[in-house]
Amino acid sequence: MTISIMRSEFESRLRKIQNVIGEAQADACIITSPVNLFYLNGFIFDGYMYIRPENEPVLFVKRPHGVKAENVFYIRKPEQMPEMLQQKNFPLPEKILVEADSMVFSSAVRLQNALGNPQLINVSAKIRELRSVKSDYELAQMRECAAIHTTVYKEIPGLYREGMTDIELQIEIERVMRLHGSMGIFRAFGENMDIFMGSLLAGNNAQTASPYDFALGGRGLSPLLPIGSSGVKLEKGTTFMVDMAGNFRPWMSDMSRTFAIGKADKKAYDAHQVSMEMNHWVSENVKPGTACAAIYDYSLATAKKHGLESYFMGTKQQARFVGHGLGLEINEPPVLTPRSREILQPGMAFAYEPKFVLPGIGPVGIENTFIVEQNGVENITLCEEKLITL
Amino acid sequence: MTISIMRSEFESRLRKIQNVIGEAQADACIITSPVNLFYLNGFIFDGYMYIRPENEPVLFVKRPHGVKAENVFYIRKPEQMPEMLQQKNFPLPEKILVEADSMVFSSAVRLQNALGNPQLINVSAKIRELRSVKSDYELAQMRECAAIHTTVYKEIPGLYREGMTDIELQIEIERVMRLHGSMGIFRAFGENMDIFMGSLLAGNNAQTASPYDFALGGRGLSPLLPIGSSGVKLEKGTTFMVDMAGNFRPWMSDMSRTFAIGKADKKAYDAHQVSMEMNHWVSENVKPGTACAAIYDYSLATAKKHGLESYFMGTKQQARFVGHGLGLEINEPPVLTPRSREILQPGMAFAYEPKFVLPGIGPVGIENTFIVEQNGVENITLCEEKLITL
Repeated sequence: MTISIMRSEFESRLRKIQNVIGEAQADACIITSPVNLFYLNGFIFDGYMYIRPENEPVLFVKRPHGVKAENVFYIRKPEQMPEMLQQKNFPLPEKILVEADSMVFSSAVRLQNALGNPQLINVSAKIRELRSVKSDYELAQMRECAAIHTTVYKEIPGLYREGMTDIELQIEIERVMRLHGSMGIFRAFGENMDIFMGSLLAGNNAQTASPYDFALGGRGLSPLLPIGSSGVKLEKGTTFMVDMAGNFRPWMSDMSRTFAIGKADKKAYDAHQVSMEMNHWVSENVKPGTACAAIYDYSLATAKKHGLESYFMGTKQQARFVGHGLGLEINEPPVLTPRSREILQPGMAFAYEPKFVLPGIGPVGIENTFIVEQNGVENITLCEEKLITL
Repeated sequence: MTISIMRSEFESRLRKIQNVIGEAQADACIITSPVNLFYLNGFIFDGYMYIRPENEPVLFVKRPHGVKAENVFYIRKPEQMPEMLQQKNFPLPEKILVEADSMVFSSAVRLQNALGNPQLINVSAKIRELRSVKSDYELAQMRECAAIHTTVYKEIPGLYREGMTDIELQIEIERVMRLHGSMGIFRAFGENMDIFMGSLLAGNNAQTASPYDFALGGRGLSPLLPIGSSGVKLEKGTTFMVDMAGNFRPWMSDMSRTFAIGKADKKAYDAHQVSMEMNHWVSENVKPGTACAAIYDYSLATAKKHGLESYFMGTKQQARFVGHGLGLEINEPPVLTPRSREILQPGMAFAYEPKFVLPGIGPVGIENTFIVEQNGVENITLCEEKLITL
């Protein structure tokens, strides 16, 4: 896949970062994370993007060889940066913005020393906030991604065979995803967010608590990756939920759908229906100005109204969110939590995933990805929503 | 897969860390990275493992719910730790060891503030050094992993079909790996080490430089993950190299094998033979006491002797290493670089990967994983080594 991103996209993103530098009265912002290097340049390199409040940025590149861009300096180590800044007649910075939520401690300290000990300000949250409002181009990428995501999910019933384990089915879904252009890894923010292409949770495995900050857990195949499929048989009368990452484009989509093996208990269909109705409520009621906390409050109240609060977002360990922004990372602002102060605005995108875990049956519910438009929201994950009986 | 690790393993690992704390005259070591939490506890959690020079560690756990271990305190945030330390009659630390190469800057600063501003010492390299010498149990895990790795690689010729692209073949290999228990993600150390299950490099794509610190590059399928397969057809007369991660156990194996489509130019077979002979030289000559730099020097000299130095470890961008330690992470000490000061000792494990990239043909060479024994090394990746013509 070749990606051609308009120059105006990068100019607009750069201008926003430069405004942040100006507001913070800082001398520069130094970008090092792959996701933000991609956001601001359209490619990834090992090195430092040095942005001043005005003019063109300078790229200090360690690797790869042969980067074609303006203002590229090749370096082996950050200690070489001051000399090159001098060549450009830039003074050494006294105050810099760095991605303190993704740069490791030793790298940050080394960079700080290399530049003559400027003050470091954490710019991570601010850039995530900028990225949370998408351009038309970025939203178009998400719609394309969601359309492929839907094509893949439609194949799931045909991939299922009686007697399969959760992981066996997941592997077949992974293969179809890869054949449709899934990049495999999906980028997540935070230090404790390991996962492999998403999760398929079957039966009681959906109750197992995990150390990660995902909506549901699962035991995993190994204690080295305690999340998702655990090798259990897909048993008659139970349900399984597919929540695999839609990473067919750099800007992602997120979607969950649920299946019942044979016929599940009526409780499963009823609770699933509640999740569908909650999604429809979002479709019809959420718009710019809606408070993210209000969406959470509505969701929890609806779960309570149906007597489902003890199954809402898990059982033993219940997630205290019902959705999350997404884009280049699967977990971006805004977050749909009870304490969120975020207000939806046009151009934001979020996944809404009210889920229930029914002991002895399994997980039910759906997750859709929504784009916030001028007058409402658009569900971009258009795919059969009801609990499909296999 | 259930893993039962003997209690003596954990006691021995803990004692080594406690010695490091003692030597550094520190009050505590705080472990937060998933890989080291697994190494020291056998499971992963979101939180802090607080190790003092003596006695049992304390686990400050945010998630998951229900951790079964001794001395567990549940917390929501690091600011709650001092009160709990007091309950245990532990004084606030004045000097602590932290994993500064993996903990992000903002987390380290917050932890430091929460604990009353102790001095922070970087313990990352030291723990990696401890992990580089494996126990018999850990080496047995690596052998088991390598045996499965070999089983999977033997299926590669049967997965190939004429007209396939590099990524199409890679996807079929990924599926077989997953069906044999591959965990999917493989853990790598460092901030710039994205990859998805390893790489399959075909023809001239092997020349493309990447930003990552792997032996070879490749363009990748998207600028968001510029490494590995690029969607090119597997053409007659070219070669492709499979370097997929052996992560069938927490302790991994690494192996590369090369295939020719139809018949490749004689140069390919000749250069491949040189790589095989270099591997045999390692098998026969390397032992405890061998300097890692000497293995690199031998490898470069051998490449030169055969007039292959401009193809050695890449063309436009040549990697300056010919192998690396591995275990819970794919890149552990020791490193086989010209400047390495590391000396091999019994219990170490390393991957040796002398590779050549021939313009117009593709990559050739092999990679094996070796364990350092008392009197020599053992190749644990026993799998057909010659350039297989498909």
